[in-house]
Amino acid sequence: MLLDEDRLFDADPKARAVARVLYAGIKDLPLLSPHGHTDPRWYAENQAFRDPSRLLIVPDHYIFRMLFSQGVRLEDLGVPAADGSSVETDGRTIWRRFAEHYYLFRGTPTRLWLDHTFATLFGIGERLVPRNADAIYDRIAELLQRDDYRPRALFERFNLEVIATTEGALDDLKWHAMIRDSGWKGRVVTAYRPDSVVDPDFEGFSDNLDKFGEITGCNTGHWPGYLDAHRQRRAFFKSFGATSTDHGHPTAETANLLPKEAGMLFDKVRTGKADAADRALFRAQMLTEMARMSLDDGLVMQIHPGSWRNHSPAMLHGFGRDKGFDIPTRTDYVDALKPLLDAVGLEPGLTIVLFTLDETSYARELAPLAGVYPALRLGPPWWFHDSPEGMRRFREMTTETAGFHNTVGFNDDTRAFPSIPARHDVARRVDCAFLARLVTEHRLGEDEAHEVAHDLAYGLAKRAYRL
Amino acid sequence: MLLDEDRLFDADPKARAVARVLYAGIKDLPLLSPHGHTDPRWYAENQAFRDPSRLLIVPDHYIFRMLFSQGVRLEDLGVPAADGSSVETDGRTIWRRFAEHYYLFRGTPTRLWLDHTFATLFGIGERLVPRNADAIYDRIAELLQRDDYRPRALFERFNLEVIATTEGALDDLKWHAMIRDSGWKGRVVTAYRPDSVVDPDFEGFSDNLDKFGEITGCNTGHWPGYLDAHRQRRAFFKSFGATSTDHGHPTAETANLLPKEAGMLFDKVRTGKADAADRALFRAQMLTEMARMSLDDGLVMQIHPGSWRNHSPAMLHGFGRDKGFDIPTRTDYVDALKPLLDAVGLEPGLTIVLFTLDETSYARELAPLAGVYPALRLGPPWWFHDSPEGMRRFREMTTETAGFHNTVGFNDDTRAFPSIPARHDVARRVDCAFLARLVTEHRLGEDEAHEVAHDLAYGLAKRAYRL
Amino acid sequence: MLLDEDRLFDADPKARAVARVLYAGIKDLPLLSPHGHTDPRWYAENQAFRDPSRLLIVPDHYIFRMLFSQGVRLEDLGVPAADGSSVETDGRTIWRRFAEHYYLFRGTPTRLWLDHTFATLFGIGERLVPRNADAIYDRIAELLQRDDYRPRALFERFNLEVIATTEGALDDLKWHAMIRDSGWKGRVVTAYRPDSVVDPDFEGFSDNLDKFGEITGCNTGHWPGYLDAHRQRRAFFKSFGATSTDHGHPTAETANLLPKEAGMLFDKVRTGKADAADRALFRAQMLTEMARMSLDDGLVMQIHPGSWRNHSPAMLHGFGRDKGFDIPTRTDYVDALKPLLDAVGLEPGLTIVLFTLDETSYARELAPLAGVYPALRLGPPWWFHDSPEGMRRFREMTTETAGFHNTVGFNDDTRAFPSIPARHDVARRVDCAFLARLVTEHRLGEDEAHEVAHDLAYGLAKRAYRL
Repeated sequence: MLLDEDRLFDADPKARAVARVLYAGIKDLPLLSPHGHTDPRWYAENQAFRDPSRLLIVPDHYIFRMLFSQGVRLEDLGVPAADGSSVETDGRTIWRRFAEHYYLFRGTPTRLWLDHTFATLFGIGERLVPRNADAIYDRIAELLQRDDYRPRALFERFNLEVIATTEGALDDLKWHAMIRDSGWKGRVVTAYRPDSVVDPDFEGFSDNLDKFGEITGCNTGHWPGYLDAHRQRRAFFKSFGATSTDHGHPTAETANLLPKEAGMLFDKVRTGKADAADRALFRAQMLTEMARMSLDDGLVMQIHPGSWRNHSPAMLHGFGRDKGFDIPTRTDYVDALKPLLDAVGLEPGLTIVLFTLDETSYARELAPLAGVYPALRLGPPWWFHDSPEGMRRFREMTTETAGFHNTVGFNDDTRAFPSIPARHDVARRVDCAFLARLVTEHRLGEDEAHEVAHDLAYGLAKRAYRL
Repeated sequence: MLLDEDRLFDADPKARAVARVLYAGIKDLPLLSPHGHTDPRWYAENQAFRDPSRLLIVPDHYIFRMLFSQGVRLEDLGVPAADGSSVETDGRTIWRRFAEHYYLFRGTPTRLWLDHTFATLFGIGERLVPRNADAIYDRIAELLQRDDYRPRALFERFNLEVIATTEGALDDLKWHAMIRDSGWKGRVVTAYRPDSVVDPDFEGFSDNLDKFGEITGCNTGHWPGYLDAHRQRRAFFKSFGATSTDHGHPTAETANLLPKEAGMLFDKVRTGKADAADRALFRAQMLTEMARMSLDDGLVMQIHPGSWRNHSPAMLHGFGRDKGFDIPTRTDYVDALKPLLDAVGLEPGLTIVLFTLDETSYARELAPLAGVYPALRLGPPWWFHDSPEGMRRFREMTTETAGFHNTVGFNDDTRAFPSIPARHDVARRVDCAFLARLVTEHRLGEDEAHEVAHDLAYGLAKRAYRL
Repeated sequence: MLLDEDRLFDADPKARAVARVLYAGIKDLPLLSPHGHTDPRWYAENQAFRDPSRLLIVPDHYIFRMLFSQGVRLEDLGVPAADGSSVETDGRTIWRRFAEHYYLFRGTPTRLWLDHTFATLFGIGERLVPRNADAIYDRIAELLQRDDYRPRALFERFNLEVIATTEGALDDLKWHAMIRDSGWKGRVVTAYRPDSVVDPDFEGFSDNLDKFGEITGCNTGHWPGYLDAHRQRRAFFKSFGATSTDHGHPTAETANLLPKEAGMLFDKVRTGKADAADRALFRAQMLTEMARMSLDDGLVMQIHPGSWRNHSPAMLHGFGRDKGFDIPTRTDYVDALKPLLDAVGLEPGLTIVLFTLDETSYARELAPLAGVYPALRLGPPWWFHDSPEGMRRFREMTTETAGFHNTVGFNDDTRAFPSIPARHDVARRVDCAFLARLVTEHRLGEDEAHEVAHDLAYGLAKRAYRL
């Protein structure tokens, strides 16, 4: 048996019994996925997935980064080279390589997610080992050809109430239009991610601004027109169901310049005359501008700071972005967010969701900030911390100061579509185990724990993301 | 039942059994409260508390910050506006608003403290919910009118052996004098908190120094006279039972200038010519001066760095200080304390108690420093970390390097008088649960655990604070 | 009974049962000690240890720093004064002082190590207290005179398969030669620690470089000759079994200058004209140079940053180095290591073991780095974190991102020879307890846990250190 029904619950019988009951009450709730990175094209075209390796391994940087760390070349896992040079193309060969190294994932969340996917989606009862690699490959490959394994069928099977994808500000949202026009009832919404037109260090920033002007009809050659372009695009994204924006900045720095200063800064940035400090200041200023627009249009704002993207230039050159070389860095919030908070932090009608890759900020900065500023909420443990231990630490370090209601439920934040139920299941189980501990230690009534479990699994995300 | 007798003990039966026995041995020990912020006027005048909301909600920033974070206005909770404009005055209305939001405190220490207070002080057996809000309000209001619910009666009921209040250097200690002269036997002592005459950024600093000179007869226009004024006030505070000083600096920075340099720095600060760096250096220097005076007069020195006070200027302007907008910041000790430690750190006759709001310093900096410098001791988990999880982390991250005897027992550090027994009870239970784990994992003998439990609940505070 | 057979296992019966079985499978595996600081002279001369205090107390900074923190003078513990002035010389008197203060070690790993040593090495069944101090002293003293308590006999009794000592680059390795020539079969290898000829701030750096030139015949007056001298010495150390180098830098800073720039920097450093930034840059550059040499000669590189050595100048002056006044500091890796990683981080043939004294880097920086760069591995919890709680935090914060196979097993890292079996035993037990939790929470199969336990106790160190 790959999956024990008590997985992730404390061994102690009393705590486990409470966790079971709590989990039973919420395990079948619909999934809300308000922040993620699945490809809207899947739902639009509803084509069958190509093969097990293309579905599960090649696009998953959690997987290939671990194998790479132990000496397996990305080429041998079918990860496309930036220069188009040849890489492994045989799905079965990639799968065998993966199976040989599956032991590396012992103790990792990837292992939990994959085993859950194998068991619940593909009906596999045995742990993946080299010996059964071919049989498992064949089984998955066969199922992937069936109609009920196409993206829309999976969406429904996963009991997804809504999923948000994330698109750049310049995206035409054609896949979203196609989904909308198809008559399919699945609720796939977009989210506005303007990094490419907000971050002067983004590749092609100047051209991006030109295009930003073209598609909006705004004059992105000056500051007011540029802000208008954002307003237009936000409205356009809202028309495709967006309820949120997403901002992936290197730091949490914000600024609140006078409009005239901001305009002068924009001019420098626009004309390529901005130095590194100017560019950082522009990013900082734009977070505050985005918050002000959120106050107007009601989009929930998400700030994801603290990742050093593409740490290895050789790997960026060889394989491009998002290849497992994004490394967390120390991140400060108390000083960084002050300009934004001074401007709009006391607004109860605004919702800003803060994420972090620096767990030291949970108890020291994030919980105290979210525990007093009405505009702030804490996003769930993110990326490297989206794991049983990471989730447990998040609850232990934020609950006592911020409570549960200043958090926003779970985000799966993934490109790995088949892993979505597994990820929500891990989160629901870990939260139930945490609540069970509070109950058995008589820090919370069991009746209350049921309500909280429901909120953590469903209600908080529903309300915070205005879904 | 609001309170289970096994609350905060591990669910595991063996660990729980040990925790029970340890706790039984120390639960009735008198309370030592060597660091707190209750109002000495209460004990001096011994007037009845006004109503349940004025006692429990309006003054408690843990409570109103949480409600504010979820959109409740401070005005609606009766928190006085700085400009005297009108706020809610009806205690019952405030109480109902609080009851409606009591679910926000699930999983927080405030919940534990209030339930303990409700149950043990007011004999309430039901959890507070909107339905029973009026009945509970009436019950508490009625009891507060009884003589045995006045401050001195509560002091005795709480089994307080001694409580320290905290007064500024310019305080006349008239309430302490009134207590002393009243013949009442309760031991209420003061503590010397000179921030207003040490921190050049303190509101009214220059006037404060003038007044400092007047009340001491010292010439606070120059450095030696200024130091003498401190010596005089410390002696005056000692005459009212003070055994400690308390220093709330933004950082742990210390300095050890030559006397001539210190005098020149004082002149700049005194005449308002000091820039930000000078002012920080002056605060730093004064920690070392205070430590030297402690070496002379035996007052235990407490350093509480790392809080960004009044993070929101709008809230400071609207409602004044201490309104829940103090946010912890990253705090370094190893470099910051070096000048002070080089000067007096090896003195076994000196006791400096270090507090932190940055838990990352526990294992990395504070335990290693306190585990070798004779003058250093670790204060208990403070403020945002004064919670079951915070206390557990403190023991787990400091004990292995600093042991138990380089810590100083519990501080309740509170303005919330009725919560004092609850806070000590939480600390005693969490410590017993921690010790029970050491016992069941065979890392400590049960006979030893009893001795340690006694020390953590009573002995260490008694000795460290020289009570 | 001093030692319970279930010590350090979870109290929960199910988890404990699994931990027992896992531990039973690995407890008798030979000890690999690839990183430590025992004195090779012991194995070379094989003389009896002098007395219990000289063996167990006087050289152990974990012990005397704790006693010093509570007011016991180092002189009274027999720690030699730097100026040769008289200190306590009577072993029994030192022992009695220690016994009086043994309660200070409650809850510390020192207590676990000593109790294990008392019980297993000296057959002592009672906890050390003042009452039995003399009897225990006599018992140990008597045993130390026996041939089977001499260093080589202990090495064999401890089931050590290999131990690495650490020698400076200028060491003649005469004790290692003597061991080799003795015909004794015990495998004692050296490790290359070049701090004294790499760190311009090291005492006598310039003279050290002269000597470095003399013993290698290389011209250490210029950069290429200096690098050659390292190559020679590395080869010399390899000939005495070294499989690793060790680098104790204040920070993890690395650099990758052009050869010409590096040469010019060397010239400044060599001639004493380098300022603090130059000296730091030189240390940084040398880490990259050492990594390149490791790529050539196969020596595993170990980087141990983040200790502020000799924090108290008065104690350094009075008693010299390594007297318990080394304090951890905040340490960054993501930025600091980038130059080195850009140069050689993608090489699967290179092994760089990273250590830290800053646990905040585990989940945030170290696990993400080691989880993707093939050249990186994580060293075990080090020094102040070499404790049950420290080991548990290490696994909880690194496994989910880096897995088990990017770690390198246990290092005892000690000068305290008799404590080696105890330290390995603690590590093995804590790892088994961690694995047992994964098993009981159904995150890992029990069959897999056996394999992992074996790897953590033996296989990973064997492979990572190429033993």
